[in-house]
This record gives sequence, structure tokens and C-alpha cells, in this order.
Amino acid sequence: MFSPRKVFELPEYTTVSGRNIKKVRVGYETWGQLNAARDNAILVCHYFSGTAHATGRYREDDPLPGWWDVLIGPGKAIDTNRYFVICSDTLCCIRVFDGHVVTTGPATINPETGEPWGPDFPVIGIDDLVHVQSALLDHLGIRQLHAVAGPSAGSMQAVQWAVEYPERVQRVLAIISPGLSLHPYVWSMSHCMCAAIRNDPAWKDGRYALKQQPLLGMTQAFHLLNLNGLSFEHLENAYGHDWADPQNDPRQALSNDFRSNAGLAALAAASAQISDANHFLYMERACALFDVRSRIQQAKARFLFVPVENDLTFPPFMSERAVSEIRAAGGEAGMTVLRAAGGHYAGLATIHEAGDAIERFLE
Amino acid sequence: MFSPRKVFELPEYTTVSGRNIKKVRVGYETWGQLNAARDNAILVCHYFSGTAHATGRYREDDPLPGWWDVLIGPGKAIDTNRYFVICSDTLCCIRVFDGHVVTTGPATINPETGEPWGPDFPVIGIDDLVHVQSALLDHLGIRQLHAVAGPSAGSMQAVQWAVEYPERVQRVLAIISPGLSLHPYVWSMSHCMCAAIRNDPAWKDGRYALKQQPLLGMTQAFHLLNLNGLSFEHLENAYGHDWADPQNDPRQALSNDFRSNAGLAALAAASAQISDANHFLYMERACALFDVRSRIQQAKARFLFVPVENDLTFPPFMSERAVSEIRAAGGEAGMTVLRAAGGHYAGLATIHEAGDAIERFLE
Repeated sequence: MFSPRKVFELPEYTTVSGRNIKKVRVGYETWGQLNAARDNAILVCHYFSGTAHATGRYREDDPLPGWWDVLIGPGKAIDTNRYFVICSDTLCCIRVFDGHVVTTGPATINPETGEPWGPDFPVIGIDDLVHVQSALLDHLGIRQLHAVAGPSAGSMQAVQWAVEYPERVQRVLAIISPGLSLHPYVWSMSHCMCAAIRNDPAWKDGRYALKQQPLLGMTQAFHLLNLNGLSFEHLENAYGHDWADPQNDPRQALSNDFRSNAGLAALAAASAQISDANHFLYMERACALFDVRSRIQQAKARFLFVPVENDLTFPPFMSERAVSEIRAAGGEAGMTVLRAAGGHYAGLATIHEAGDAIERFLE
Repeated sequence: MFSPRKVFELPEYTTVSGRNIKKVRVGYETWGQLNAARDNAILVCHYFSGTAHATGRYREDDPLPGWWDVLIGPGKAIDTNRYFVICSDTLCCIRVFDGHVVTTGPATINPETGEPWGPDFPVIGIDDLVHVQSALLDHLGIRQLHAVAGPSAGSMQAVQWAVEYPERVQRVLAIISPGLSLHPYVWSMSHCMCAAIRNDPAWKDGRYALKQQPLLGMTQAFHLLNLNGLSFEHLENAYGHDWADPQNDPRQALSNDFRSNAGLAALAAASAQISDANHFLYMERACALFDVRSRIQQAKARFLFVPVENDLTFPPFMSERAVSEIRAAGGEAGMTVLRAAGGHYAGLATIHEAGDAIERFLE
């Protein structure tokens, strides 16, 4: 299932905040075939630190497939034998340096100055991400979507699609979703992640050279992001009470640590290496601004919410609340709770366990 | 209810890790009267960033009373007309600079060098805190405790008391408790708080001058501590979706923020000012080392656990698990869940709502 990144370019884009960005470029991947009626397209939106590589492997020996490989593919719940699936790198995609991502944001060149935008990049919202995706669909000649689907921040985009372009969206599949707005608790937590970046002297108010990123702060930001994405059960099962080094008792020196801390730090450092600090801050703000509550009556799509039982980031009450709000506005919405031990990230890793409900919803 | 801090001094103490500390000093307060039989004493242990000032006001115009004022006092659930209540600043009490605390830790002078201990202070555990409290009780001539009570890290001390000194403890009242050991998820989260301190260049591997504390990192550490201590409900009720400044739309600049972030930052900065960074790191480790599971059959006390329904730091399953473990070891334990919107900190602020259950348990 080879799928090289394609690139979509918009000569210019005006943000919701009223600022102009010249030469907006985003990468995208597609799977399956667009049918003659052009009505079998499903747009998949990626999560906070995700990319357009939603499924498949570029090469057989790739260590990991795309991030929703359990859900998308031939014969899977989002069946690429039936549907034409599109996923694009968002505007301001965090994982800028993973070798595949094509995006436009603080780490990319502002054609008007010839320099990276840095902190002069305009603030963007989830709506801006969706506007660029809409232009991509125009370019692909797709008028209406069979569905828009996404996990976490991807679900925000999916929900936003339904209010921005009611005529274009038949179904919204919102996995591990915050509902119709980001909860103040969640942005207060992500603010702590951003503080780790901002408190790193290497951040320099966002005016760091690209090769001199605030890696310490970024690593700490991803560390906290991942911890919130996991669960009590996962930490207990994966690390237990083990020491980082069986020879070095944490009772004897503060520098002797526990295995969970070392494990999560290594995971976070790997993410930091391929990401951009300003992109993290801008995407955090885009999520905090997400709020379609006052516009939800405009949506014409049917909604399915799939929260994960022990999700610490977006607990199931947020999906429940969204279902109530949509129904109160006259819309159609349902919910299936995924029973999983993995926390928020189960919405990526084990989402196929809700595959039947998702498949039925897409019928 | 005036109660000036008294000071208890031990000429020396050997930690569980085998290191010697000369001239250990801790402050303490007492309320009520020790009866002639000397059997009406209740030891109250303070939480992570708490102090010996558990109840009452020093002066009538003190803005705030002690931290468990709703629970302890004449006619309250822990009735100082009946009980003699003692609370001591722990070893390594975090709030070193609040003007009242007397403690021994990295920020205090090592008599052998004449310099502050700094990072040369030995690692301590909850057991070490309890050993010093035990010496204080010897000094006060109290052989047996009617009860040991505490919230959060105070509950760890209370539970530890029951296994260290089974003959001295009749009852353990464990409020918002982690159970019989700290869960790996919790120390992974508190590790993120500590990372904020360690990543602050002003920390200097713990060898900062006392007037040049890593305040940025400390503030961030308390910010994350407090956020985990609160709840989704609290953040929504207290701050909602408000902007920090109604004139400055977060959509227009990253530096325009939300009110919850500004509010939590101010709260955290106030705590950082009166605390010591190394004490925070040492107390975090003491909590991470807490684990009495293999010794719980030694306890002879009856236990009451009072978790808070929506506690994000120590969710009720931890208390449930502790009750099962104690019963499996042949002990006697019960649980009352406090229904409250405030999260973990409801175990301080609104614990009187479980007052009846607590009063009955103390009979």
C-alpha cells in the first residue's frame, strides 16, 4: 500500500484572524479510488502531533505503519476497497521534520521575507485548518464527503467541517473527541506543556534558529502530552514500580529514577527531534480556540462519537455532552464507548475494537 | 484559637537510607488538652505542600485559617474539646519560607558544614517523616494514638504509621489517599512537575543560593500540581472560556491568554515564593518511594478511606484497592466516597461534608 506524499499549494490564504499567508503548501496522501459519481470520499483529519500518513507503509520494512492503520485499509472499518480516503498534513503540522510532512507554519519560509515566519506567523484556529482542507478537496474535484473522520484534534476538525460546510459533509466520525469546544481544563493542561517550551531559554520568544530548537522544553512538552494520552492502567502494566536501572535504588540518590520516567522521556525525546516548538504552541492555541457550540444548528451531518472509557485527556462526558448539544439543536448524533485500558491513545492504537460500530455508521 | 509554633529537636537522626542528619528540628502545633490517661491524642499529618498549621488562626485578622479548619476544632468532626490534636511540619517541609514553618531539609543548615545541605541532603521516605513524628510523640509523652489522620501525602504518613508502629495506632483516617503505595502514573505526573524545576537553569543541579531560587520552574511545578489537584468541574465553574483580558482576544496573538492560565499561574507563583525547590524534589521522591503493601499485615489499626469522587490525582479506585488489600491481609478497613465538584483539593476544602462518617469512625 505505497502512497507517497503529494503536495497541494494555495497561492494565498487569509486566516480567520484576518492575516494573509502567501503560498500555503500542505502534503496529502490518498488510498482507494474515487468513484465516477465522486461520492465515496472520506476525509481523515490527523491528531495534534499526527501527519497525513494515516495508514499503510511506504516500504515493506517500515517499522511502523500509518497512525490509523488498524482502522483504514482494504476490508477494514474504513474500507479502501469502497472509499476514497484522503488525509492531509494540516496547516502548522507539528511534526515538520519527520522527512515526509509538507506544511506551512512558523518553521517554514515566509515568501515575503525569505525567512522562516517564526512567531510572526498568524494565530490560526481549527477553522483555518479546515478551510485549507476544503480548498484541497476543491482541487481534487470532490464536492461532498461521505464522511469526515478524525481522532482527538482530528475530531475537532471533523466537527468543524460540519458547521463550516454543512452541504459538503454527510457524516462526522469523532473519535476521542473533546465535543463541541475545548474544555478549559484541557487547555489549562496543554498550557503546562507549552510552558515547558516557553521556559526553555533556547526558545528565545520563538526566534530560535531552526537547528537550535528548545529541545529540553519540547521533550518535556511531549512527555506531559503523552502521559495525559496514556492511562493509570497503562503505566501500571507497562512500567509498574520498576527502577530505571536495577542497580540504582531511587532511595539512595535523587538521580536514580523510576523506569516510567525514563521510558516516557525517551519516547518524548524522539517526538521532539522531528517537531517544531512554535508549531506546538500554535497548534495548542488552535485547539484552545475550538468552539462550535453556537453554530452547531448549522450542521446537517449525522454524528458518531467514540470516546474511550478511561481517557484522561477527553473523558467520555465530553462526547456525551456533545451528543446532547447536537440533539438539542435538532441534529442526529450517537455514541459508542470504547472499553480499553490504553486511555486517550487507545483511540489510535485499538480503535479497530469499535470497528463494527464505525462500519455500520458509514453504511 | 491561638497556637504558636513550638519546636522539637532531635540531636541526630539516621535515615532509612542509612545517612545521618544532625540536629533535626521540626515545628509543631497542638490544639485541645491531653487527658490524664494520655489516650485522647490524634496526630494529623500534612499534605505535600502543607504545614503544621492545620487549623485555627494566629490572629483574628489572618486572611485564612489552617488548612483543615473545616474539620478540626471545638465541636467539629475532629473535636478539640475531646481530642488532643498534634500536627508537625514534616522533615523537608516544602513551604520553608512561609514565616512559621520549622523544618530540616536541603534549605536548612547542615551543622557539620555550616552551609545549607542543598542536594547533599539524604534521600528520605515517608517512613523517615513518620520516624521523626514518633520521636516527637515520645517527647510529648504520648504512647498510643487514638488516630492518625491526613489528606493526600498526609494519608501516606498515616498509613505508614500503622505499619511502622502497630501498637501505637488505633485508627487511620486516610483522606484522598493513594492507597498502600504510590501509583506509577502519579509519580510520572509529579516527575513532570519536578522537570519544570530541573529544566530551569537557575536550579543549578540544586546548588542555587537560597535567595536565587529557580522561581520560574517552581511556579510551573506548583501550576501543574494545582491543576491536578483541581477538577474539570472546578475549571469550568471558576474560569469558563473567559479570556485573561477581555480586550485581548487569544485569536489575535499567542501572548493573549485565557483566564484560567493566568489565574493558575498567579496561584502557583504565590506558593513558589514561600517554598524551596529542592524540598519539592525531595518530597516528590519521598512520595514516590511510598509502598507498604508487603508490610500491611503488621498493622493493627482500623482504617477509614475517604476518596473524592472526581479526584484526578488519587482517584477513588486507589482507596478501593487499599480497602481490599487490607481486608485480604486480615485487617479492618472501610470507605466513604465524598461527592464533591472540587477534585483532589475537596479533601481539604470541603472535607467537613464527610464529617459525620469521620466522627463515627473516631468514636
